[in-house]
Amino acid sequence: MKVAILGFGVVGQAVARLVHSKHADRLAVTHVFNRHVASKRDGLGDNASLPAGVVWTEDIDEVLSSGAEVIVELLGGVTPAATYIRQALESGASVVTANKQVVARHGPELLAVACARGVEFRFEGSVAGGIPVLRAIEDGLCGDSLTRVAGVVNGTSTHILSRMEAGETFAGALAEAQALGFAEADPSDDLTGRDAAAKLAILTATALGRPVHCSDISCRSIETIEAVDFRYARELGCTIRQVAWAETGATRGQVIAAVRPALVSHRSPLAGVTGNQNVVTVVGEFGGETAFFGRGAGGEATAVAVVSDILAIAGARDRARRAPRRAFAAGGSPGNSVTSDFVAPHYIRFVVRDRPGIIAAVSSVFARYRVSINAVLQHPGWPASELPFVMTLEACGESCLDRAMTEIGAMDFHVKPPIVLPIFGASRGAV
Amino acid sequence: MKVAILGFGVVGQAVARLVHSKHADRLAVTHVFNRHVASKRDGLGDNASLPAGVVWTEDIDEVLSSGAEVIVELLGGVTPAATYIRQALESGASVVTANKQVVARHGPELLAVACARGVEFRFEGSVAGGIPVLRAIEDGLCGDSLTRVAGVVNGTSTHILSRMEAGETFAGALAEAQALGFAEADPSDDLTGRDAAAKLAILTATALGRPVHCSDISCRSIETIEAVDFRYARELGCTIRQVAWAETGATRGQVIAAVRPALVSHRSPLAGVTGNQNVVTVVGEFGGETAFFGRGAGGEATAVAVVSDILAIAGARDRARRAPRRAFAAGGSPGNSVTSDFVAPHYIRFVVRDRPGIIAAVSSVFARYRVSINAVLQHPGWPASELPFVMTLEACGESCLDRAMTEIGAMDFHVKPPIVLPIFGASRGAV
Repeated sequence: MKVAILGFGVVGQAVARLVHSKHADRLAVTHVFNRHVASKRDGLGDNASLPAGVVWTEDIDEVLSSGAEVIVELLGGVTPAATYIRQALESGASVVTANKQVVARHGPELLAVACARGVEFRFEGSVAGGIPVLRAIEDGLCGDSLTRVAGVVNGTSTHILSRMEAGETFAGALAEAQALGFAEADPSDDLTGRDAAAKLAILTATALGRPVHCSDISCRSIETIEAVDFRYARELGCTIRQVAWAETGATRGQVIAAVRPALVSHRSPLAGVTGNQNVVTVVGEFGGETAFFGRGAGGEATAVAVVSDILAIAGARDRARRAPRRAFAAGGSPGNSVTSDFVAPHYIRFVVRDRPGIIAAVSSVFARYRVSINAVLQHPGWPASELPFVMTLEACGESCLDRAMTEIGAMDFHVKPPIVLPIFGASRGAV
Repeated sequence: MKVAILGFGVVGQAVARLVHSKHADRLAVTHVFNRHVASKRDGLGDNASLPAGVVWTEDIDEVLSSGAEVIVELLGGVTPAATYIRQALESGASVVTANKQVVARHGPELLAVACARGVEFRFEGSVAGGIPVLRAIEDGLCGDSLTRVAGVVNGTSTHILSRMEAGETFAGALAEAQALGFAEADPSDDLTGRDAAAKLAILTATALGRPVHCSDISCRSIETIEAVDFRYARELGCTIRQVAWAETGATRGQVIAAVRPALVSHRSPLAGVTGNQNVVTVVGEFGGETAFFGRGAGGEATAVAVVSDILAIAGARDRARRAPRRAFAAGGSPGNSVTSDFVAPHYIRFVVRDRPGIIAAVSSVFARYRVSINAVLQHPGWPASELPFVMTLEACGESCLDRAMTEIGAMDFHVKPPIVLPIFGASRGAV
């Protein structure tokens, strides 16, 4: 399927990379539209992950008449992005965008154009970056009646508030966010909640089926929050986040919606995000609360949302041609070999009749198997005749550890067999 | 669209209720298949939420020849459920099931039958109850290459381990789970990890595209965990959960998969579940980690998954007929009225020049507006000339509170304007 990309910035380049590295069998980028195309192209050189024959252009009409089946809009801003999207849909192409301002302001009318032309308009990347929350709400929870949607969806605010919680000042945290590239030079849309309000407008329409103008959503700035508020919040079992939420009102057609700095209980899923993570939670009449976490920003996470939208359009076309459904059955019958020889840090709890030399005996076996001991923990207050102690091990393969533990288990000081547990999430990036 | 239900237990009844109350415009339950149909029907009486003309039957052939477009299998167990599903698909009906054992053992071959007949076989409810995780993985993250899937997906184990963490013994926590109806009379599949392994087999096929036999997945029981392990885990910043996970192996066709009691860092999303909540996380090469939380069990949550699957089948049929897409644009242009007059508990931080009578003055205004004060907090160590203190308020409407705060804000003791923050998640069931 032929794909054209409008706007070749961070997200556009990540989309090209993802298409090129993972989906070249189904998708081909045929056109790239950008301002100052010559300097852009020359600046990227061979790093653009684009097929050899790709057409670079500054002329939108060349893209619209190119025969691309999907046009990906990543220009940002409302003008001229909304116009280009409408023209693309009217020309018979499907459109994928990650542009929250366009979707929040013109989503319903652009969907109507798409529907009238029998093409698709998709925008998963416009809210919460890589988290497939619109899809999950619209498809996976469509059986339920959702009554509330809430989220922490602005990375700059989350960064500032989590840094303030750690002792940084507001001004210091903002300067840091700008230095790291999280916050714009003018961060006012992030701080006041206008950025989150655009995302909330999209979530409200999707989850509650009640489109609202994002300019009608009441916002309050996080700029009033001070260090003292985090001290009191902690005492109340809470942290502080910028929360965007909407509920169905008492009457049909009424929506209660707001963006506010808020105290959030540590028990709430809304409290569990830092950095550029986003969380969105929905509450349904039948299914209760469901929460979605993930990377809310960044070119690669947003590219996953964009490419998944493109593949959905390709999939719908394939299904219309009765091509087989992908996933699950892809491997045919279960012919894959399964092992449990994973690599993880481990916790080992021994219960022993204490005597000198136990740690030495155990650690010499581990040394022979090249398993590194991280720590030895032993709480006081247990009898020497039945003493529990714990060793934690650096990451090692389970089968190797099993062999070491067979030797160790045969030693004569055990009161009961040692137990071995992997450890998850102890280091960054681990599950 | 005509729907037949096989098995009218807790989930089957919840499906009928949800269809009847929310989707009667698109779906109609025409047949209910169950053993001992007379006593079942009489036992339910008028509480079954079924249309007047529904046919009750003990004869599977009557269902298979009924012309139902979707057959919902909720019998549980492998036999005869797998046979009925195959017959239904071969007869040209689509099938929706929440039966993890059937999907884990026969999923790929049943999908192949469905594909050959041009019908659908869907099973969102077979993993993690109401969380639309299969959909999110298969559609929303299809652009990424997923390398790992992990979950806490067995409610009995989570209940027992979280109760042990709070000081209960293993035996006591198990008896409690059985009394509450979480655990079966024979809980061995839950404790040993066999139940989680069936769900992991489905997740592995869906997320990694590598179907495996669930009997090939190595499991270890949670029965070895003792109170002392929670003490050491806490010292390590962890809790203990039954974790099921799978990773792509180093070679094509190899999968690393296991179910283990494991230490889980409090920083990991896997640590954030209690009771019958489930969590599933996936890691993608491009998008990083994404996590899905929600109700993992219960008739109503599972019914949301089942009905969402039925509606997906109805939606595909509608799209094939080029009927308009639902959601988002449902309300047409944004004609909904938006208010921010939500009801929530609140935190108010004052900074005042201290003098006697401030609390009295503030609280008398709140009393006049019928706003209840929950607590007054004041940390020592601040100068009386610029003293911060906090009031927390019971749930109240924002517009009423705004009026009260306008009066209070006009008083002469403020050093800076009070700040007002809603509080989320402080009570059970709240966002």
